Amino acid sequence: MSQHTHALTEFLAGLRYEQIPDAVLARTEDLFLDWLGSALASAGAHPIPLFERYAQEMGPTSGPSRIFVNRGSSSAYFAALVNGASSHLVEQDDLHNSSVLHPATVVFPAALAAAQHLRKSGRELLLASVAGYEAGIRIGEFLGRSHYRIFHTTATVGTLAAAVAVGKLLEFDQKQFTHLLGSAGTQAAGLWEFLRDAADSKQLHTAKAAADGLLAAYLTREGLTGAQNILEGEQGMAAGMSTDADPSKLSDRLGTRWALAETSFKFHASCRHTHPAADALLALMQREGLRADAIASVTTRVHQGAIDVLGRVTVPQTVHQAKFSMGTVLGLIAVHGKAGLTEFHELALTDPAVAAFRDKVSMILDPEVDGAYPARWLGRVEVTTTDGRRLQGAIDEPKGDPGNTLSREELEDKFRRLVQFSNARSADEAGELIEQVWRLRETTDLSQLG
Amino acid sequence: MSQHTHALTEFLAGLRYEQIPDAVLARTEDLFLDWLGSALASAGAHPIPLFERYAQEMGPTSGPSRIFVNRGSSSAYFAALVNGASSHLVEQDDLHNSSVLHPATVVFPAALAAAQHLRKSGRELLLASVAGYEAGIRIGEFLGRSHYRIFHTTATVGTLAAAVAVGKLLEFDQKQFTHLLGSAGTQAAGLWEFLRDAADSKQLHTAKAAADGLLAAYLTREGLTGAQNILEGEQGMAAGMSTDADPSKLSDRLGTRWALAETSFKFHASCRHTHPAADALLALMQREGLRADAIASVTTRVHQGAIDVLGRVTVPQTVHQAKFSMGTVLGLIAVHGKAGLTEFHELALTDPAVAAFRDKVSMILDPEVDGAYPARWLGRVEVTTTDGRRLQGAIDEPKGDPGNTLSREELEDKFRRLVQFSNARSADEAGELIEQVWRLRETTDLSQLG
Repeated sequence: MSQHTHALTEFLAGLRYEQIPDAVLARTEDLFLDWLGSALASAGAHPIPLFERYAQEMGPTSGPSRIFVNRGSSSAYFAALVNGASSHLVEQDDLHNSSVLHPATVVFPAALAAAQHLRKSGRELLLASVAGYEAGIRIGEFLGRSHYRIFHTTATVGTLAAAVAVGKLLEFDQKQFTHLLGSAGTQAAGLWEFLRDAADSKQLHTAKAAADGLLAAYLTREGLTGAQNILEGEQGMAAGMSTDADPSKLSDRLGTRWALAETSFKFHASCRHTHPAADALLALMQREGLRADAIASVTTRVHQGAIDVLGRVTVPQTVHQAKFSMGTVLGLIAVHGKAGLTEFHELALTDPAVAAFRDKVSMILDPEVDGAYPARWLGRVEVTTTDGRRLQGAIDEPKGDPGNTLSREELEDKFRRLVQFSNARSADEAGELIEQVWRLRETTDLSQLG
Repeated sequence: MSQHTHALTEFLAGLRYEQIPDAVLARTEDLFLDWLGSALASAGAHPIPLFERYAQEMGPTSGPSRIFVNRGSSSAYFAALVNGASSHLVEQDDLHNSSVLHPATVVFPAALAAAQHLRKSGRELLLASVAGYEAGIRIGEFLGRSHYRIFHTTATVGTLAAAVAVGKLLEFDQKQFTHLLGSAGTQAAGLWEFLRDAADSKQLHTAKAAADGLLAAYLTREGLTGAQNILEGEQGMAAGMSTDADPSKLSDRLGTRWALAETSFKFHASCRHTHPAADALLALMQREGLRADAIASVTTRVHQGAIDVLGRVTVPQTVHQAKFSMGTVLGLIAVHGKAGLTEFHELALTDPAVAAFRDKVSMILDPEVDGAYPARWLGRVEVTTTDGRRLQGAIDEPKGDPGNTLSREELEDKFRRLVQFSNARSADEAGELIEQVWRLRETTDLSQLG
């Protein structure tokens, strides 16, 4: 085992709740609520019911661990599987930029399912989740960009992140964490090929990452041994699935850098490349007290990647295309003040005011914006008003990024809108869930959560 | 989709029981019995009970599909998982040389578990198993040697082989088989790194390959879509996990070449590099009517690979080392007439006659044997007798290879010895199981099998 894997497993085994700064614990609760909203938002949407039926067919039809989308329950394995499938579907879950990992959709399904099974407390759930985030993000950074070109990091690395979270709930020592990484890493799988066909594998990936990680942890508890150097070994993950792995990332500032707090919330329900401009426009309109009908044109100054990804769609034909239409996104923002799931499904394709605004929007490449990317996602818009004024809007960090994070009120609002979107819970129930999450640190019985 | 993947999925969808030659069906029954023996032989041995406990904890505690090692049952998923773990442990299961795939330990656990769940007949089970073998072997050959250097082919390709078998039981059409390969291929995982530490991952690999393949098939039945070109696509399996993939292997003589029949049975319980010499010695002793104590020395003429792998162990300290000791293996053969699991566990380290014979054995490199390897595993021995004669023994195909396959009597004998080794079943029960397998083609109800 290398010094880096050694340092990582030592950190994971030694991590105590008391070591974690209050702000990080609070952010973990924020991320948990955000994740729960994403899981509930997909209720009834393809392909989630397929996973529900599979769990019914293969698993116990009730158990200690909650399945959110159908108010059901099962063993921890199947709860992790279905909740893992459901929480990445509407793509409103969190993202860690430098690891290109969506940690919530793999860590929380496994951690909560195991915590409910093992009758753990809210504090133990938070500690385990932090461990999963810290390990997963560092392993994602370790495997690097070459890995992400072929492999879906949230699937591959997600298996280890989920495993670590459950291992922490099982109170593993360093030796067990090493075996656990071995057994989780040798199950790590997930290829991007499905994107070409818009196939359902993204849900399979997050489902399996959460469930396989949990499986690895429970088998490790029983005594299953694993490779001691699965990350860096000659026939390990990096050897097989990366050409630019950087082992020093594995132990990067353990215990002082809290990678969990670097995770971004997704605020708008659109492609992230539209977010900087959307935020800059919203800021400008609020600052100037402008209404949509007072705007004659909007020029967004963007990075090249935004033009590459967004450039093709002019008049969107599907909700998915609308999320990649800069004009439509800014139209929803300008006319309705937000671009959430409900706005996309109810207004993006049908509201004439949105369509009219869409046609006023253009994109041009901005050297400053392009130079800052991808470290910083700068938002720059130029607005011409109907009365002839030229106004500038700018934000330096999109809403939801760590330096411009969502307030608890904004998170609650997003959560309520996600739950309302699928009708998975009533407004009252949504309110109760919010209260449950904000009380996590004091909760001793998680069995009713969800 | 390429022509090769297209041809493969078309073949799988169209394959009918009536197309399969009688000899191939009979060989499938042979392989099935051989597999069942391997599964039962591991009862009680680490790490199999870990998987049993996990299945108890996470799955239904009874169900339509049998778990062999503990006479239990569960849903198809958990039966595939536990039976997949157990059938590769004693390493007496089959091997297909050019794909470096052990097909039985991944195909049969999934196929039988699903067949019992779906109330399929013996013929449907055989048809499904043939489909799994034909697809798995070709996909293994397609991914090539570069894949095998890092990835455990029986784990990765095994997932697809298992999936195909279950897909055939579910009567998939070509479109479903394409989705199925996508969903199975994107789960394919398994790294050789565990070998360095002699960790338990080999059992995890076969368990997961069988179970994940089954999961992919059941989800495909529900309507889950998968990548259309998972094998050959730009972000597919070959792109991520091979540098010498040969797509033409995928469609190699479909329907005329029966790759299943190329699979080797393992006859001796030792490292396969010892088998050619063991068979040559046995043939010589039988031909000459020689007893062990009439032999003064044995020189085995071997390929370089045998010297590389076997060369180091002189006096074995463990059963595992004894299996890699040429002298010990020939000692068991000469003194006891066989080198099965029981002989290794009861005699290899303790019998003075075996130890005495061991010291009479040497290995030398033979250019002819080395040149023929790995396509042919030639066995050549030179024996000097105590009365001064010099005798030659030779076999051109080790016992168990397709051209020198085991008779049903030999398979039954191997099966009985495997079952006796673990005491998983009584001798009478073993006999009944043998009869059940030989009647597979006429069986309409598989629920009691196992």
